[in-house]
Amino acid sequence: MQLGMIGLGRMGANIVRRLVEDGHECVVYDHNPDAVKAIAEEPRATGVSSLQELAEKLAKPRVVWVMVPAGDITTGVIGDLAKTLEADDIVIDGGNSYYRDDMRHAKTLGENGIRLLDCGTSGGVWGRERGYCLMIGGSEDAFSHAEPIFATIAPGVDSVPRTPGREGEVAQCEKGYLHCGPCGAGHFVKMVHNGIEYGMMASLAEGLNILRNADIGTRSKKGQGDAETAPLTNPEFYEYNIPIPEVAELWRRGSVVGSWLLDLTAIALHEAPDLAEFAGHVSDSGEGRWTSIAAIDEGVPAPVLTSALYSRFASRRLDEFADKALSAMRKQFGGHVEKPGS
Amino acid sequence: MQLGMIGLGRMGANIVRRLVEDGHECVVYDHNPDAVKAIAEEPRATGVSSLQELAEKLAKPRVVWVMVPAGDITTGVIGDLAKTLEADDIVIDGGNSYYRDDMRHAKTLGENGIRLLDCGTSGGVWGRERGYCLMIGGSEDAFSHAEPIFATIAPGVDSVPRTPGREGEVAQCEKGYLHCGPCGAGHFVKMVHNGIEYGMMASLAEGLNILRNADIGTRSKKGQGDAETAPLTNPEFYEYNIPIPEVAELWRRGSVVGSWLLDLTAIALHEAPDLAEFAGHVSDSGEGRWTSIAAIDEGVPAPVLTSALYSRFASRRLDEFADKALSAMRKQFGGHVEKPGS
Amino acid sequence: MQLGMIGLGRMGANIVRRLVEDGHECVVYDHNPDAVKAIAEEPRATGVSSLQELAEKLAKPRVVWVMVPAGDITTGVIGDLAKTLEADDIVIDGGNSYYRDDMRHAKTLGENGIRLLDCGTSGGVWGRERGYCLMIGGSEDAFSHAEPIFATIAPGVDSVPRTPGREGEVAQCEKGYLHCGPCGAGHFVKMVHNGIEYGMMASLAEGLNILRNADIGTRSKKGQGDAETAPLTNPEFYEYNIPIPEVAELWRRGSVVGSWLLDLTAIALHEAPDLAEFAGHVSDSGEGRWTSIAAIDEGVPAPVLTSALYSRFASRRLDEFADKALSAMRKQFGGHVEKPGS
Amino acid sequence: MQLGMIGLGRMGANIVRRLVEDGHECVVYDHNPDAVKAIAEEPRATGVSSLQELAEKLAKPRVVWVMVPAGDITTGVIGDLAKTLEADDIVIDGGNSYYRDDMRHAKTLGENGIRLLDCGTSGGVWGRERGYCLMIGGSEDAFSHAEPIFATIAPGVDSVPRTPGREGEVAQCEKGYLHCGPCGAGHFVKMVHNGIEYGMMASLAEGLNILRNADIGTRSKKGQGDAETAPLTNPEFYEYNIPIPEVAELWRRGSVVGSWLLDLTAIALHEAPDLAEFAGHVSDSGEGRWTSIAAIDEGVPAPVLTSALYSRFASRRLDEFADKALSAMRKQFGGHVEKPGS
Repeated sequence: MQLGMIGLGRMGANIVRRLVEDGHECVVYDHNPDAVKAIAEEPRATGVSSLQELAEKLAKPRVVWVMVPAGDITTGVIGDLAKTLEADDIVIDGGNSYYRDDMRHAKTLGENGIRLLDCGTSGGVWGRERGYCLMIGGSEDAFSHAEPIFATIAPGVDSVPRTPGREGEVAQCEKGYLHCGPCGAGHFVKMVHNGIEYGMMASLAEGLNILRNADIGTRSKKGQGDAETAPLTNPEFYEYNIPIPEVAELWRRGSVVGSWLLDLTAIALHEAPDLAEFAGHVSDSGEGRWTSIAAIDEGVPAPVLTSALYSRFASRRLDEFADKALSAMRKQFGGHVEKPGS
Repeated sequence: MQLGMIGLGRMGANIVRRLVEDGHECVVYDHNPDAVKAIAEEPRATGVSSLQELAEKLAKPRVVWVMVPAGDITTGVIGDLAKTLEADDIVIDGGNSYYRDDMRHAKTLGENGIRLLDCGTSGGVWGRERGYCLMIGGSEDAFSHAEPIFATIAPGVDSVPRTPGREGEVAQCEKGYLHCGPCGAGHFVKMVHNGIEYGMMASLAEGLNILRNADIGTRSKKGQGDAETAPLTNPEFYEYNIPIPEVAELWRRGSVVGSWLLDLTAIALHEAPDLAEFAGHVSDSGEGRWTSIAAIDEGVPAPVLTSALYSRFASRRLDEFADKALSAMRKQFGGHVEKPGS
Repeated sequence: MQLGMIGLGRMGANIVRRLVEDGHECVVYDHNPDAVKAIAEEPRATGVSSLQELAEKLAKPRVVWVMVPAGDITTGVIGDLAKTLEADDIVIDGGNSYYRDDMRHAKTLGENGIRLLDCGTSGGVWGRERGYCLMIGGSEDAFSHAEPIFATIAPGVDSVPRTPGREGEVAQCEKGYLHCGPCGAGHFVKMVHNGIEYGMMASLAEGLNILRNADIGTRSKKGQGDAETAPLTNPEFYEYNIPIPEVAELWRRGSVVGSWLLDLTAIALHEAPDLAEFAGHVSDSGEGRWTSIAAIDEGVPAPVLTSALYSRFASRRLDEFADKALSAMRKQFGGHVEKPGS
Repeated sequence: MQLGMIGLGRMGANIVRRLVEDGHECVVYDHNPDAVKAIAEEPRATGVSSLQELAEKLAKPRVVWVMVPAGDITTGVIGDLAKTLEADDIVIDGGNSYYRDDMRHAKTLGENGIRLLDCGTSGGVWGRERGYCLMIGGSEDAFSHAEPIFATIAPGVDSVPRTPGREGEVAQCEKGYLHCGPCGAGHFVKMVHNGIEYGMMASLAEGLNILRNADIGTRSKKGQGDAETAPLTNPEFYEYNIPIPEVAELWRRGSVVGSWLLDLTAIALHEAPDLAEFAGHVSDSGEGRWTSIAAIDEGVPAPVLTSALYSRFASRRLDEFADKALSAMRKQFGGHVEKPGS
């Protein structure tokens, strides 16, 4: 079938490539003409230079995928499409929008009878090859109309062995895409997915850091504890030099922590055991925050997911004033002076 | 080669089965004669009824795998072996021993010249088929002697695709076993592995719980907030009925959280979407605690791993007195009375 | 000066009592006529039976304190006052409103020229005697007009020794009230105050729980660890029966953790060392949640405050599905069966 | 009565001053002769230049207070005293020893019939004036003999108002010292005290940091979010410039968070609102770590206390490798590149 794609960054471009390879036709637009030109060379891809032109080239009801940065930019494109498209057309927001914004966007588009599908899209730079995991919210009829698109983009049932107990007819979710519920449900599920991702990443990272410091008994013999630092009670228990890249590789086979994130970690550590190229200032891009806010709103504890989020904040030194306050209190009650360079 | 196996529970028995299938000979012992009898029916397996008999049936230097519960029982078996075996023999502790106990055990055995290998063994009930991920500590020479055993038990290089960048000769870690360092290093790495496992499990569990409660806006309309409970500011944001078993299945394909733990979760949720058979009192078996203690000793933060551990404690209501103290304080300062049945 | 008070619950009634005792005149209203009748017996207090009557009895510009439950009820009263009062009148919201609601309320009132002061009020049932700590937001002119009211309600400079270094003229904050900034600033500061309160309460509660379980080495000798539970490595380190009420009392004198919350804890433990009357289902009333959301929005880590919040959620078993998921995973990978009654 | 004091640092010297002022006689020793000389000028204080001389100057049974850094130094002094003192003599370890070390020390001393009292001592640099809060472990008879010393050093019943409900005869704990149980119980209680202290400090510090960043909506207007950073959804909610030193002072009166730590924070912030002299590298000195280990050993959750500990570790950048691992994973799966200087 036909799809209009707005936004030809890494994700948008690769989705188009998967679609045209599978026989779909794509009309593609980006505010950067070079990006349009590059993708327009693919078979069954047509470049356009405006939303108006994009609308003209698509059969009705049109299906338009928006793949631009979440927030103001997505809201802007949605507003433009509300004016350009017509009743019954379908807009798919495949970016990382907050599900609450979907509700607003659906209202904006709905005033002209245009339907919104929110589509959480996981897969990163590997999705071109592996396929993208798609979490979709919106009306049943809009979803059904666009389903062939999702079926092509998703990894498909054969990408992993079927779950024991699942036999016979392949369920939708097994194909790698799922209609999760009404407007916002797709991005809600994607949000929680990313929240879990933060927790899993932090689990691995903290564990590797403990392995990394398993030699602290050797190191601390030289720099003894003093009144300001707890001495290590049993240095003899921490005299290991663990070969971390090998351990990451090892765990890929047969262990309980086997995971795609571990696979990626093994790649990174094989390339650079010390990860020296990184400063360790870890960004966060919204979903981890929103997941914790959802937990708080729902009144359910999420200590692991929120700890993972806060560790990222701390990696960027956003706790500086708090730390200074601690040092100030210690000085006040105990006369403790900060150790220079500690 | 020949191996003596002490302890024929689920793990011990399956390891023996993998070994004899691959051509090794096993002399097997368990304090339960029925367990011995069952395994002795396997080809190349010989049952014995005492450690003495086990020692007699093995060629020197003997290799004896101990697969019994960690703690006092393992220590007891090690003590017995110290008396039964001879210089140059090798004992492999494949259980979940604390790596600090390995150090003591190595000393006990070493007094008679017996060598200890500590071997963290991951794989659970699936290891029979998938192979076991093996993390090994001890001397290089003992490890080399026993390596054929490890090679058979481990999953092997083909169990997952090779890491991009790893080409040519297959590294030890790629075969699914690794000599991690001197005595205790194997169980140290296994300990941290389990700590990570706790964190990953909790990440998934917390995320699923947030999905499960995504309908709280619907539910809470009836039971409004009161002076003792925060009202939900925006109930309209929490009106989703997320199909959780389908989401777990979905994420198996192409998502960032793809993992063996997710595979298992998908099985469990497919079998019983409500998980009604479980009370939710989650045990912990040592390694999670020791991982957090290692982090504290090393002075490195592990908020995610420790949060996961504490959640397990809380699932067993071990925080009861703390909670009562909070209620007592609230009553003192605010006259707040606990809500009955809340 | 004159004040209208709407809401004669514990807090509202006690504030009126402090005011009339200090010579102010109060016109009081509550939807419960009995509450009005009770307070109207105080000297300088006049009961009324409607907002209209309240407005008639107050000189212009009127100052009206609203002391009703936050959320819909406060919003309702604000809406009524917007119709009843006149330009230049001042409404003080002394309840636990979300500071974001203050912004909406200020707009509603502002359409008729009415000014809003948001006033976070701490002190609980002890405020009648100790005075209330007041955190105020809104315009400078409204604040100045109402300041005599605040000065009476607040504890006053002499309630604690002056901070070393603060000499001479008494600063506003030393009197126990503070104009913290524009609309919402008062409730923002109060929100964070309560967030800190949660953290301090949890600190004490967790510590007492650790003391309470300092005898676990004695108890666990009978119930040994098994494959599902970590055995206690060194039971001999946990054989103390700590006299907890005495410890709480002890810490009140000369220790670093001396605090009003500790004073209250000492009272509660002296009354009932086992706190047996409490079930330990700890409510939360909004500010703790909002504080964590503020931290997340600001991108600053607040692991302690959020942990305290999540512990309250967990005390109400809101993590049940997460715990079941953990048990389900453990069963899947390790064949672990939940311990009955554990 | 008579006391020998070993260690004349800030704490030891001030304890001697309180004792001699109250009529006790002190024989004082320090490895630094200048420290001895300074204290020997006090009335009723006698300086000595060796442990031998100290023993000679004291009547039997001797009572000797050891006030030196915990760990190897304390163990060394205990070893020396085991040789210098005699049966029935009493050693008080008033430092910050691990309670498990007390057990070893008691054994060392006990071989010569010498009795050990472990005495957790809280009060910091203010104890000279306020008195010290004393948590004591050891045998009843040793405690009774030394009780007059404790009674002088402690703050006394009048240092705070008596707890409502406590009337008539003054309990031991009300005087500011408490015999908590057998050997180690004193330092166990002190350990948990410090654990709580960490949690309370972090509660205040995190809260102040949230106030500090309440203006982030103003700041972030300039630096918009990008693909690597979550944009602030509602900047208009974060446009406050909270006067933090005034808020800290305010909360001292009538609020729920009133505490000695808040008093100290108010001093520090009054002296330097920006706390610019501090780098925010927060040390920890043992008890906070041991408290978390006790919680883990006991199997009780202590998420707040451990979070506070981990924040200190993070303030010293001990999570660096973990953070690098996170950045590495993000680059692998999403092509995310760390923001320079972020």
